Amino acid sequence: MRSFASDNYSGVHTEIMQAIMDANEDHMSSYGADPVSAEAEVLFKEHFGQQAKIFFLTTGTATNTLILRHLCQSWNSVICSEDAHINVDECGSPESMGIKLMLAETVNGKITVDTIKPLVPSEPDVHRAQPAVVSITQNTELGTLYTIDEIKSICDFAHSKGLYVHMDGARIANAAEALGVAFKEMTVDCGVDVLSFGGTKNGCMCAEAAVFINPEAGINFEYLRKQNMQLISKMRFVGAQFKAMLTDELWKRNAAHSNSQARKLAGKAGAIEGVKITRPVEANGVFAIIPEHAVEKLQEKFPFYVWDEQTGEVRWMTSWSTTDEDIEDFCAAMKELI
Amino acid sequence: MRSFASDNYSGVHTEIMQAIMDANEDHMSSYGADPVSAEAEVLFKEHFGQQAKIFFLTTGTATNTLILRHLCQSWNSVICSEDAHINVDECGSPESMGIKLMLAETVNGKITVDTIKPLVPSEPDVHRAQPAVVSITQNTELGTLYTIDEIKSICDFAHSKGLYVHMDGARIANAAEALGVAFKEMTVDCGVDVLSFGGTKNGCMCAEAAVFINPEAGINFEYLRKQNMQLISKMRFVGAQFKAMLTDELWKRNAAHSNSQARKLAGKAGAIEGVKITRPVEANGVFAIIPEHAVEKLQEKFPFYVWDEQTGEVRWMTSWSTTDEDIEDFCAAMKELI
Amino acid sequence: MRSFASDNYSGVHTEIMQAIMDANEDHMSSYGADPVSAEAEVLFKEHFGQQAKIFFLTTGTATNTLILRHLCQSWNSVICSEDAHINVDECGSPESMGIKLMLAETVNGKITVDTIKPLVPSEPDVHRAQPAVVSITQNTELGTLYTIDEIKSICDFAHSKGLYVHMDGARIANAAEALGVAFKEMTVDCGVDVLSFGGTKNGCMCAEAAVFINPEAGINFEYLRKQNMQLISKMRFVGAQFKAMLTDELWKRNAAHSNSQARKLAGKAGAIEGVKITRPVEANGVFAIIPEHAVEKLQEKFPFYVWDEQTGEVRWMTSWSTTDEDIEDFCAAMKELI
Amino acid sequence: MRSFASDNYSGVHTEIMQAIMDANEDHMSSYGADPVSAEAEVLFKEHFGQQAKIFFLTTGTATNTLILRHLCQSWNSVICSEDAHINVDECGSPESMGIKLMLAETVNGKITVDTIKPLVPSEPDVHRAQPAVVSITQNTELGTLYTIDEIKSICDFAHSKGLYVHMDGARIANAAEALGVAFKEMTVDCGVDVLSFGGTKNGCMCAEAAVFINPEAGINFEYLRKQNMQLISKMRFVGAQFKAMLTDELWKRNAAHSNSQARKLAGKAGAIEGVKITRPVEANGVFAIIPEHAVEKLQEKFPFYVWDEQTGEVRWMTSWSTTDEDIEDFCAAMKELI
Repeated sequence: MRSFASDNYSGVHTEIMQAIMDANEDHMSSYGADPVSAEAEVLFKEHFGQQAKIFFLTTGTATNTLILRHLCQSWNSVICSEDAHINVDECGSPESMGIKLMLAETVNGKITVDTIKPLVPSEPDVHRAQPAVVSITQNTELGTLYTIDEIKSICDFAHSKGLYVHMDGARIANAAEALGVAFKEMTVDCGVDVLSFGGTKNGCMCAEAAVFINPEAGINFEYLRKQNMQLISKMRFVGAQFKAMLTDELWKRNAAHSNSQARKLAGKAGAIEGVKITRPVEANGVFAIIPEHAVEKLQEKFPFYVWDEQTGEVRWMTSWSTTDEDIEDFCAAMKELI
Repeated sequence: MRSFASDNYSGVHTEIMQAIMDANEDHMSSYGADPVSAEAEVLFKEHFGQQAKIFFLTTGTATNTLILRHLCQSWNSVICSEDAHINVDECGSPESMGIKLMLAETVNGKITVDTIKPLVPSEPDVHRAQPAVVSITQNTELGTLYTIDEIKSICDFAHSKGLYVHMDGARIANAAEALGVAFKEMTVDCGVDVLSFGGTKNGCMCAEAAVFINPEAGINFEYLRKQNMQLISKMRFVGAQFKAMLTDELWKRNAAHSNSQARKLAGKAGAIEGVKITRPVEANGVFAIIPEHAVEKLQEKFPFYVWDEQTGEVRWMTSWSTTDEDIEDFCAAMKELI
Repeated sequence: MRSFASDNYSGVHTEIMQAIMDANEDHMSSYGADPVSAEAEVLFKEHFGQQAKIFFLTTGTATNTLILRHLCQSWNSVICSEDAHINVDECGSPESMGIKLMLAETVNGKITVDTIKPLVPSEPDVHRAQPAVVSITQNTELGTLYTIDEIKSICDFAHSKGLYVHMDGARIANAAEALGVAFKEMTVDCGVDVLSFGGTKNGCMCAEAAVFINPEAGINFEYLRKQNMQLISKMRFVGAQFKAMLTDELWKRNAAHSNSQARKLAGKAGAIEGVKITRPVEANGVFAIIPEHAVEKLQEKFPFYVWDEQTGEVRWMTSWSTTDEDIEDFCAAMKELI
Repeated sequence: MRSFASDNYSGVHTEIMQAIMDANEDHMSSYGADPVSAEAEVLFKEHFGQQAKIFFLTTGTATNTLILRHLCQSWNSVICSEDAHINVDECGSPESMGIKLMLAETVNGKITVDTIKPLVPSEPDVHRAQPAVVSITQNTELGTLYTIDEIKSICDFAHSKGLYVHMDGARIANAAEALGVAFKEMTVDCGVDVLSFGGTKNGCMCAEAAVFINPEAGINFEYLRKQNMQLISKMRFVGAQFKAMLTDELWKRNAAHSNSQARKLAGKAGAIEGVKITRPVEANGVFAIIPEHAVEKLQEKFPFYVWDEQTGEVRWMTSWSTTDEDIEDFCAAMKELI
């Protein structure tokens, strides 16, 4: 099967698989107290600072939900986009842990200080959930990017109101590569407090990290992770994935390929008559409207998702493993069906 | 490092690593809708019946906690041993999800109908948590085994009171091998409703399964798994582990080795003057009391845990990767230190 | 103090206070197993049918939240208005119990089949919270009323999708009186499954009831109520309040007075130059915009709330205890200040 | 009916009912911002210090559960007696809010430093729930009393380990009167951090208070109370109850009567042949064993509870409303039945 359904339809990049095999020697302490995880942590701190607290997990939903849970008291809420993965795609995971989401108006996946503002009350009120966090997704669920300045504005506003800023970085590598910046410039330097750092979609097997750039915010997170069933025993194999990902800039090589394939796809598909690219293609997602009769037949050959049932808008994701041939075959099939 | 601390200090068995690599081809549907996971499911059903509902997860804590959550309404409770992993070693994970544990008196890790009985009320009472599940661990946290008859008695009693029976089988392969029975005889045939099937300790990387032998009990569990952050996207790599584990009886080969090494260790260590083996060695755990002055120094060479700070009892776990040399070196070091 | 802030600024109606005193005799079984509560239950069933399951509680927040919790599995969601009390005024109580709210577009406090529809997925999806309930408020938080036909349409649509309908009836008496219908016509006959029946705002001290018109939906609710700390021991005093409320149509007398005072207030205030009544006055709430400089000074004499900080819209609630003099004094003060 | 089942089978004391009626004037701010509640708060501070934070609630279960929830992070646990109301009689309410209870060995309802000690780990461990609170009940569920010295010892030990001490004082007035001490001597002076102050069992209608003697521990509790559905709107009527209770030492007069009736009952009943008083009678509870054949028949005339189904031990509670005639009639009936 070749697919544009999601970057997680891909397998594991060779360098990461090799790191996993390399870690498979000897006995090692379990639950993260192993030397491989320690090495990975050192690499993370090169990006996010020596003060950062890093925790490894295995799913993006867990990383997002547990970070938000940790930043909130039970009466707090989280401000986010109505398109946010935490709102739409996690089966109510945040709410199942008692977190109220407050949805800010959103344009192309992005929220702004102006749309956040009305959700922050002028004074505390025992009858209302009190916002404690603003959560943004970089790059967004709609394949768009917050600029450095936009992130800074949101952080400045949030901090002026005593709120934390969380960044859902399931595709953080794609974003950094697309913006041409280091992770640090897009997070630490902007004032982001906590980051969900995604490895899985960019070539790992199952590797996500909760990065508390603001270390105060991460105190005792180890208990929350364990209690919420996210502390895998043979953690060395997650550490190994991150070690490979952060060595020789594999993260950037994979992201660059993925982003470039998205642009290529948008170019080629957009040139087909009857196909309309509907959103800016800023990272590795392409949104489009194609003739309705072609959708299902095309999906049979190359799985992808209908994003919006009302409008018929579809989503195509590229990944580190998307080949030129994939794109050519896909566009050829589309052309034929249309 | 060589260690007797836990079977999860081991790495991944070669056949399992090979299966992981074999699964790393092409694009595949994510979240478990892949052909590798489907094959693994077929193998599971050969053991637990066509009616069974099987769900893959990545940690034992998640498997136990989510099964129990699924079997209980919020006002229900779970009867278990005071030594149970769910009571002692999961950082309050069951309670964090609203599950009250009721602790039955325990001998050598095992509970009995007689010790369960007083916890089951004669009639419903709105002021008391109402038991809904009996949870037993096979083999137990103390390295002992429930006999087939003991499991049957507990199931019969539980069912007569309208309770489910859950088996925490983090070391289920060790138990089946030690008793010389098929999985089915120890679970399905006894009346066990749901099983936490452990792969990780027996040579997997991160592979646990919730096996709803009683399929009614498993309806909608897929939502609970997703919401509780246990649905990894590249599930094919968990499926691959189980596929290898259930092929050519790898589970039994690994368990046989592990169990036999425990017996060997108990024999050799027990023969050292000053060492007392404190519990029946029925699977892959050895409990002992050794001279206090030797404990820390021995731990420095071969990590292991002090099980009971009051009595000084220590625990040594063997695994599929424990070599004869490990045992000899360990006993030699112990002898010297004593 | 005289106030238009909320109907809960009022005290307790004389007939209700008398019933409380009458119940203060002898010893009686606690936790609701008393004869006074039994009498009140009989009166409830005259309105909602013999099949109904009735549970007494002491706060509206508890009644709403616990009903919704009972109707949902952890992965379910509740569709409601963005103005709903459960969304805005309960400090995230539903979410604190794991309930995800999905907000439907709202006009003058009301949602419609058309605005509910897009929130109901065409098929189950493990990644999304699955709607299980539509919750409407009658009369709404904006003082408006659903017509009988509107309620029926919502119920029909909800049932066709397998969803329950919950009615938040914190002011149910005002609604029934205003529509000129019996409780039954507005609930049972429309297909409403569960009702939060409010007594407190209409002259009780602390008396709310969860009325499961659909009795299946209420099975085991007694455990949820107890566990969630809403089973008061001397329940006879809540029973007594409802007994009085449902005797000689006290509920209707109080509501009629309250509604009529709202119309009177809207008439008198609306006639003052500079005052604009902003919403239909259909029950006992009046919404208005008055000159900004007058707001704070008027509040000092007669407390009331600013409803919308952005537009300056204010809310005035009348109650069973609002006198003609209150209205005259209030309007006179307003006139003077403007 | 006359009963020895529970002190909550009683009605409301006249002075408290009068205070409720006195509070029923005019409009008042809701949710506790009223002058009556303010007066009651002043009276509380006379007992517990100006620094104390006081919150009114309506059930004992809520007061206990919410205090414990507030003192714990999700990974914390509470050490208590196996007989504790929070363990046995609240339908798993603490666990439903994520609190793990750890049960200390208990003699006559009391735990000691020696039985608490083994439950406090020597160092933090991410795999285990971390104790944060010791909870004791004064007087205990078995009608016994902790001495001042015993309370001090427990507080000193708890504080030396960084734990809070919570006192469940559902019958705190009985305890203070029986020990002949002021509330302060038994709580503040011993080092108790938080108290559940019970009014209902001692003559109120529904009045309980969370008293944070240690004010740091109570910060933000108002949000937890609201969110957890315990903030009744017409709070003035709870305030009124406490105002009466703390005026002219009504609390002590009621408790003295109740305690003295228990001693009288124990004396008279204990003198009947075949009746054995099984526990020290230190407050208002009497535990006894009577001939089995007499139990049900006696219960028909005077309801009471069988405390222990195994041993047949029964419990008789006296209250502020227990008359001499009640005791004489009860003993006469018992004598006849035996």
